[in-house]
Amino acid sequence: MAMEYRQLTESTVAEYLAGVPELRGRLSSFTDLDVREVGDGNLNYVFIVTNRAAPDETLVVKQAVPFLRIVGESWPLSRRRMDFEIAALKTQSALVPEHVPEVFHASTDMSLVAMRNLRDHRILRGELIAGKRFPLLADHMSTFLARTLFHTSDFAMDPAEKKAAVAASVNTELCKITEDFVFTHPYDDSATNAYNAELPAEAIAGIQRDPELRAAVGEMKFAFMTAAEALVHGDLHTGSIMANSRETFVIDPEFAFYGPMGFDIGALVANFYLAYFAHAWRQPQLGHDPASYRWWLLETAGGLWEGFTAKFLALWRDHDAARGGESFVGRDIDGGKSAEAYRQRFMKTLLADTIGFAACKMMRRIVGIAKVADIATIPDLKARAIVETHALDMARRMVMNRTGFDTIADVAALARSISAPEAGIP
Amino acid sequence: MAMEYRQLTESTVAEYLAGVPELRGRLSSFTDLDVREVGDGNLNYVFIVTNRAAPDETLVVKQAVPFLRIVGESWPLSRRRMDFEIAALKTQSALVPEHVPEVFHASTDMSLVAMRNLRDHRILRGELIAGKRFPLLADHMSTFLARTLFHTSDFAMDPAEKKAAVAASVNTELCKITEDFVFTHPYDDSATNAYNAELPAEAIAGIQRDPELRAAVGEMKFAFMTAAEALVHGDLHTGSIMANSRETFVIDPEFAFYGPMGFDIGALVANFYLAYFAHAWRQPQLGHDPASYRWWLLETAGGLWEGFTAKFLALWRDHDAARGGESFVGRDIDGGKSAEAYRQRFMKTLLADTIGFAACKMMRRIVGIAKVADIATIPDLKARAIVETHALDMARRMVMNRTGFDTIADVAALARSISAPEAGIP
Repeated sequence: MAMEYRQLTESTVAEYLAGVPELRGRLSSFTDLDVREVGDGNLNYVFIVTNRAAPDETLVVKQAVPFLRIVGESWPLSRRRMDFEIAALKTQSALVPEHVPEVFHASTDMSLVAMRNLRDHRILRGELIAGKRFPLLADHMSTFLARTLFHTSDFAMDPAEKKAAVAASVNTELCKITEDFVFTHPYDDSATNAYNAELPAEAIAGIQRDPELRAAVGEMKFAFMTAAEALVHGDLHTGSIMANSRETFVIDPEFAFYGPMGFDIGALVANFYLAYFAHAWRQPQLGHDPASYRWWLLETAGGLWEGFTAKFLALWRDHDAARGGESFVGRDIDGGKSAEAYRQRFMKTLLADTIGFAACKMMRRIVGIAKVADIATIPDLKARAIVETHALDMARRMVMNRTGFDTIADVAALARSISAPEAGIP
Repeated sequence: MAMEYRQLTESTVAEYLAGVPELRGRLSSFTDLDVREVGDGNLNYVFIVTNRAAPDETLVVKQAVPFLRIVGESWPLSRRRMDFEIAALKTQSALVPEHVPEVFHASTDMSLVAMRNLRDHRILRGELIAGKRFPLLADHMSTFLARTLFHTSDFAMDPAEKKAAVAASVNTELCKITEDFVFTHPYDDSATNAYNAELPAEAIAGIQRDPELRAAVGEMKFAFMTAAEALVHGDLHTGSIMANSRETFVIDPEFAFYGPMGFDIGALVANFYLAYFAHAWRQPQLGHDPASYRWWLLETAGGLWEGFTAKFLALWRDHDAARGGESFVGRDIDGGKSAEAYRQRFMKTLLADTIGFAACKMMRRIVGIAKVADIATIPDLKARAIVETHALDMARRMVMNRTGFDTIADVAALARSISAPEAGIP
């Protein structure tokens, strides 16, 4: 039955939830709910709902409003983004239930989802800023990436079903945000950019006044806009992950669409490289020698890629084996050699894509409108500028030379070569 | 008003046409029509309709049937392919009316289109087999390619409109034919393949028993399946072109979908390379030294690419100039240098794609089920095998080394190096 959309508030959430049959088993009573709006968000309203009489009965309600919340009603943004989030949560949950919050109720009419309250988990970005380690993170996130990207690709899906999925996942409005704010404005001296006042002009010029850099970014933008490889999360930074030492969950897939696989992997490793540069300053502030934590950050980025590669290839080989060796390149007439040669070429290309997309994500976080707290909250603007210069320097070399890295270890080596103790890190 | 589909015959076409308002101005009478079914086709029925009382009143009716005509009702194939043809004809007509036959009437209900009878034009393939030259062909076809590919791409279209066009152009069934018969079966020793009995086993092994070759073809297949760059014709061989010395028309766009630009350009140049090898045998049969006509074939393939490049870039630069220099890479802050650097990178990548796709089209025409008459009608099977071996040798080197060609002239040089007089052409 269709329901008319209305924007919920702390005082109307309980009444709405009481009318949802699927939630009757989740909350034993709707008469004494504690409802708190905790919208961290730029886009949406998020309510934490707890039954005061039974505090273990708790859930989260996330509702999209038809404008960009951070700006207000003057910036319209279709509520349809919640349709994409609901659809992506459903697909991801089916593929990696252990890394996606359980959805109890979803309504496209209300642009709303009610899901598990991850109260024992925290946003990864804040944890990384605090210098915490997550030994299972690379394993968990490489599983998330391998399963979601493999199983929604042409390597696993029936071509007709995959094409139908692509058409159903056209996410125009949120892709436009990425096209503009990741791939265009940071490099064209847009008025929307925001710069640390201490960031040297030549560092900014390095990504705005070099035609070859902008052309390389253009190549990544074109891939983002045309390469319908798999259902990507579309915004997989460390603020879209909630974790504790045991568990890892991916949230907020409203940017999901069929795009290039490297965009998700690149987004995630980019955030580890940004944290790596930030912790040159943060670790001493926390009273530590930076080497150990920074080593862990690069190891985790490397482990993400290596774990992803191993798991993606294992899924792929198993999938083909189950079809009698028939693979993307056709029937097996050579003991699997062609299939494996193609898989290796694919992974090599995907590493280059990953590096290129990671670089764009890094540059936009320094120069574009949307910052990362890892760096933007460094109060010493001169120290922050050194961190930013290092990140920009690395990103430049990544995107310009993205096909020149044989392994993810080569990327880590680049990071180390830029921000080494002898280079005068603050 | 919806109409129930029925398959027309020579005896029912006139009655149908008489009921179509748009045709009343085309045919002054429907009582004495000459209707001849001329289905060359593997897929469809094609009727030539002429008013006996006024022979200049003539048109073509093309109707899709819900099966693969060449096989019969046992091979179902959705009539929806005509929807894609109608939509593509409409888009192409708007962009290059001088190279697309005028459509007088189209009905998705009847899976039917009534259009100009190109009675003064002939299918290009037959003309090339006969050794005819078309001095304007490269100019015309490069115009067709440049305009259709540029104006349907992200370089020209609003991102939202382009994404909607991609979703509306998902052409699953006909793409599957290409995925199977261009990119898979020729290389996996499929039972659907057909070989000239005189084709040496090692020539076939060269494209079926080399894992790196099959992996390279897999890369082209993946691009075909994922790269939604522009509305491509999808089957742009020399049998899809009707020409005379003055005019050139592109027909039969039922395979149209949003795919890689290089697929169309590659398909066309591939057919010129195949003709080039075929004419090593054909020109002597026609009493000519082969050098002159073969030179023209390579010049035309080169002129297609060069003309395409010049026109595509001109459209692109004009488009950007009309927006005050704003281009795909963003605002113009460097006198257009970034925009131009990106354009040059794009064209370099597109040349590599074109060469890779052309190679697949060449190989499948030798080894796969669907041949080209240029080669397959050579009655001397040993001579045909030499032609085929040359074509396979060239295609192998093209797809394996597709990023290694700086210009289309390098591809022509490869062709000449393979099938040179001193190499013992038959």
